[in-house]
Amino acid sequence: MNSLFFTFEGPEGGGKSTQIQRLAQWLKDRGWRVTLTREPGGTPVGERVRNILLDDHTLSDMTLRTEILLYAASRAQLVEQVIRPALKRGEIVLCDRYVDTSLVYQSIGHARAIDEVIAINGIATGGLTPNRTYLLDLPVEESMRRLRLRKKGIDRMEGKGESFHEQVRQGYLQLAQQEKERFVLVDAMQSQDDVFTTIVHDVQPFLPTTS
Amino acid sequence: MNSLFFTFEGPEGGGKSTQIQRLAQWLKDRGWRVTLTREPGGTPVGERVRNILLDDHTLSDMTLRTEILLYAASRAQLVEQVIRPALKRGEIVLCDRYVDTSLVYQSIGHARAIDEVIAINGIATGGLTPNRTYLLDLPVEESMRRLRLRKKGIDRMEGKGESFHEQVRQGYLQLAQQEKERFVLVDAMQSQDDVFTTIVHDVQPFLPTTS
Repeated sequence: MNSLFFTFEGPEGGGKSTQIQRLAQWLKDRGWRVTLTREPGGTPVGERVRNILLDDHTLSDMTLRTEILLYAASRAQLVEQVIRPALKRGEIVLCDRYVDTSLVYQSIGHARAIDEVIAINGIATGGLTPNRTYLLDLPVEESMRRLRLRKKGIDRMEGKGESFHEQVRQGYLQLAQQEKERFVLVDAMQSQDDVFTTIVHDVQPFLPTTS
Repeated sequence: MNSLFFTFEGPEGGGKSTQIQRLAQWLKDRGWRVTLTREPGGTPVGERVRNILLDDHTLSDMTLRTEILLYAASRAQLVEQVIRPALKRGEIVLCDRYVDTSLVYQSIGHARAIDEVIAINGIATGGLTPNRTYLLDLPVEESMRRLRLRKKGIDRMEGKGESFHEQVRQGYLQLAQQEKERFVLVDAMQSQDDVFTTIVHDVQPFLPTTS
């Protein structure tokens, strides 16, 4: 089975969506079947959970544990309904955010929560770990600048202030340091083309020759 | 602190709602402050999760892990937003269903899931355990007969067939056997008044004299 599972992580503004789309197209052009998905959401059940998670009104009094469990519920559904079946069909799965997002965001300011996040997500995913995780890393000022350039309203995460975003960045860098085999640290200050080249260069050795 | 936490468990048709209401009134008449709540739901976030859980359309493809995590998310919110604050205020909390419901219903036909249910709920509740759990036990035939008498439509759980309901009953009896200190097995074949007397008789020793 040649199935592969790649995830993309990093702050908003780092270009995850663009790079995932490009990589998906690049793989399809070479004859690979690709499943592209995102978190939270990606399934009918998950989209309903996503609506609760992104609703400011509900969120204002949501406890941290509830948030951790809801992200995990959405993830469990995605893993069993989309990711595992696609991998069984021998496809390449690209996922915009995965467990690392929870590890980083949900433990900020709650260092003790990290063990709960790990335990809950281990169960939610049945231990399914990506072959590679591309961390699109960006200094906070640049991440904020790019977000301001976007016309769409700044959402909850984006409005949280520089110190929060610096903790996100450091959280990701620390994970990448802890799991060097899985993480690929990509400098998202490069041009989009250079970022893409970096990713493709890393992806290629995973692909068995098809001809 | 005189706070107390009582939960009510058992199959549908066993009279949980009636008995909780009566006990709440009985306690209030004696000067106790009572918080009455139910699962899943009981909070704005929890009610939204409840809607997902009780929607047949969504549920048809919901995975077991997602279901376990969603019940736990609703429960985590209820514990932190309602139950713990009420206990801190020194009140008596009565809850219609709690962790035991998940232990029984979500492990039926999936014996291996029980460890996941225990782990996830331990985190969701922060280990908060009731002082007493009243199990309103009923033979399956009688439970089914009472449900048919109700005018409201038979919901998902109620339409699952006798073998399912027998497993529910046996699951509860087994839990009660394992935790004899906490569980009180109440024969729900008795009249409502006799059931109530049984419960009050058990509750009384927990109540410090107020005068």
